[in-house]
Amino acid sequence: MVDARIALDAMGGDKAPRETVRGALEAITRDQKIEVVLVGDTKAVEAEIAAAGGSRERVRLVHASQVVGCGDAPTDAVRRADSSIKRGVDLVKSGEVDGLVAAGNTGAAVAASTVVIGLIPGVRRPGIAVTLPTAQGHSILCDAGANIHCKPLHLYHYGIMASQYARGLFGSQHPKVGLLNIGSEEGKGNELVRETAALFARGIADLNFVGNIEGNDVFNGHCDVIICEGFVGNVVLKTAEGLYEVIAGKLKELALSATAAGHERASGVGELLQKFKQNRDWAEYGGAPLLGVNGLVLISHGRSDARAIRNAILQAARFHRSQALRLMTQDIVASGTTRSQA
Amino acid sequence: MVDARIALDAMGGDKAPRETVRGALEAITRDQKIEVVLVGDTKAVEAEIAAAGGSRERVRLVHASQVVGCGDAPTDAVRRADSSIKRGVDLVKSGEVDGLVAAGNTGAAVAASTVVIGLIPGVRRPGIAVTLPTAQGHSILCDAGANIHCKPLHLYHYGIMASQYARGLFGSQHPKVGLLNIGSEEGKGNELVRETAALFARGIADLNFVGNIEGNDVFNGHCDVIICEGFVGNVVLKTAEGLYEVIAGKLKELALSATAAGHERASGVGELLQKFKQNRDWAEYGGAPLLGVNGLVLISHGRSDARAIRNAILQAARFHRSQALRLMTQDIVASGTTRSQA
Repeated sequence: MVDARIALDAMGGDKAPRETVRGALEAITRDQKIEVVLVGDTKAVEAEIAAAGGSRERVRLVHASQVVGCGDAPTDAVRRADSSIKRGVDLVKSGEVDGLVAAGNTGAAVAASTVVIGLIPGVRRPGIAVTLPTAQGHSILCDAGANIHCKPLHLYHYGIMASQYARGLFGSQHPKVGLLNIGSEEGKGNELVRETAALFARGIADLNFVGNIEGNDVFNGHCDVIICEGFVGNVVLKTAEGLYEVIAGKLKELALSATAAGHERASGVGELLQKFKQNRDWAEYGGAPLLGVNGLVLISHGRSDARAIRNAILQAARFHRSQALRLMTQDIVASGTTRSQA
Repeated sequence: MVDARIALDAMGGDKAPRETVRGALEAITRDQKIEVVLVGDTKAVEAEIAAAGGSRERVRLVHASQVVGCGDAPTDAVRRADSSIKRGVDLVKSGEVDGLVAAGNTGAAVAASTVVIGLIPGVRRPGIAVTLPTAQGHSILCDAGANIHCKPLHLYHYGIMASQYARGLFGSQHPKVGLLNIGSEEGKGNELVRETAALFARGIADLNFVGNIEGNDVFNGHCDVIICEGFVGNVVLKTAEGLYEVIAGKLKELALSATAAGHERASGVGELLQKFKQNRDWAEYGGAPLLGVNGLVLISHGRSDARAIRNAILQAARFHRSQALRLMTQDIVASGTTRSQA
C-alpha cells in the first residue's frame, strides 16, 4: 500500500522536534500512501508523537544521538557519524527510504548528501531548486545558493534537471527554461551566462530554452524554470523575501491607520491583507530538492513550521512518484556532456 | 542667483522630447536657482516649450542634430559627435554646466561619460548608484549594472564614493555601508566579496563599514549604502521592480473583487492602494549618478515621465551643491589605493 517512504531529520531546524514531528504526522494523515521515518533522538521524538496524540501507523523511528546545528560547519554533518542528518542520508544511500526531508543547516545537508550519496553520473555540483510563487502560478529557480563557483556546464545541467523536476511538479510537458541575465538580447552579460547560453542553444531536443530573461521576469511567470548561479540566486531569493516583508508590513500599518476611519473600511482592508498573505505562500512548497544528488534530498527552511514540513514531505513523495530522478539521469546522459571538461 | 546649471539630454528616453522638456520646466519652477540647458533638436525642443506654455527664463538651448536610441550600441554615443548625449557630456567636460541628466540608453551614457569626461584619478570603473525606497526611508545601491567585471578595488571605491553621495543626499554624517553577500558571517561568499570585505575592513577612517549583509537587508533600511557587483545589482533591482508590479497587480485584482462586496469597503481598499503607490515612489529620486566619472552625470530610466525628469534635475542640483564630487575625489586619494594594481 505504501509507495513512498520519506525520512525526516526530526532534529533539524529552529522548531525541531516539535514542529517536525507534527508536520510528519500531518503528512501521513493527508496522504495514506506515505510512510515517514523520523530520524533523531528517539525519546524526544516519541514524546512529541505522544503530545500530538498521533498514532504510530506508517511511522518508523531511527535513532541518532547527535545533531548538527545551524551554527555548525557543513563538514560536521559528515564527521558526526551519528547525527540525524548523516543517518538520514545513509537511509537514502542504502535504499531504505525513497527520500529525505531536512530543515536547518543547508550547507550540512549539501555536504552530507554529496559525500554519502554521491552525484548523478556526469553532474559536477548539486544545485538547490526552490519553488517561487509568481503572477501565473509557480516557477522553479536553480541554483538558490548551493554552488557559488558555477561553470557553464553546471548551469546547463541545472536546466536539464530542473526541467524534469518541473514536469513532475507542475505537469507541464515542455517547461520553459530561462537564463537569468542583465539583458534579454543575445550576447548580453558576463562570460558565465554567455557561455551557458551557448550550451543551452545547442542542447538536447527536449529542453525548451527560451533564452535570456531579466530580473523583472522572475516573478511574472514568464518561465517555468529560471537558471542562475548560486550567489545571484541566493541574493534574488532573499531580496524578494525581504521586500515582501517590507510591503506586508506597510500594508498592515496602512490597515491599522484605516481602522480609525471606520469599521467597514477596516474590514475590507483586513480581508485584503488575508488574501495577500495566502497568495504569497512561500511555505506551500515546503521543500527545495538538491538537484544533482543521486538520491532524493529536499531541503526546508530553518524556520519551518509543521505546515512547511508537511508540504515538504508531500512534495518529496510527489517527486519520488514522478520518477524525476531516473528521467534526469537519462537526460544528463543524452546531453552528451558527461565526459566533457568543466 | 543661479547656482546650478544642469544640462538635460532632451532627446533621451521613450517619452522625449515632450516629457523631458516638461520635466525641465517643472524643475526650474520648483527651484529658482537652477538653470537648465536643453540639448537636442532645437526646433523640436522649442515647440515643446511653446506647447507647455513655459517661459525661456533660466532655459538655454544647445542644438544637437543626432540621437542615440535605446537600440543603438553604447559606442555610438562617442561616434555620433553631434548626438544629444555626446553634446551633453561635452558641456560637462568643458565646465559650461555643473551636471547632466540623461534618460534612455544607459550604456551610451556610461561610454560617453567615461571617454569624454574621464574618471576621478585612481578610479578604474564607473558604477551606477540607484536610490531604493526602504522600510525606513531610502538606501543607495551601487553598482546597478555599469560594471559586470568588478574587482575588489572597484567595489571598495564604490563604497567610498557612495558614502559621500549618501551624505549629500540624506544628510547622514556616517552612512552605514554594507556588502551584499549570501551570508552575514565573515568569510562567507565568493572570492570577490571576501577580498572586497578585507579591503573595507582596513579602509579609511571615515567609512562606516558594517560588514556583510544579505538580500533580506536590501529593503529593510539596515544600511544607507549597499555595495555589490553590477550583475547582481542589476538583477536585484529588476527583480524587486518585477515583484513590486506583481504584488501591486494582485492587490488591484483583490480590490476589484472587493468592490462587489460593498462601496464602503472598496473605498478603504482604494485608499490603501493609493498610499501603497505613493510609498513606492521609484520615480521620486529620478536619477542615478554615475559614480567615478570626473563630472556629474545622472542617468534616468528610459521610460521617465516629466516628474522623474524633474526630480532627476533637482537631485543633480543637490548633488552639485553638496560638493560630493570634490569630497569623493579627496577620499579616493586618502584611501591610498590610487596607485595599487587592480
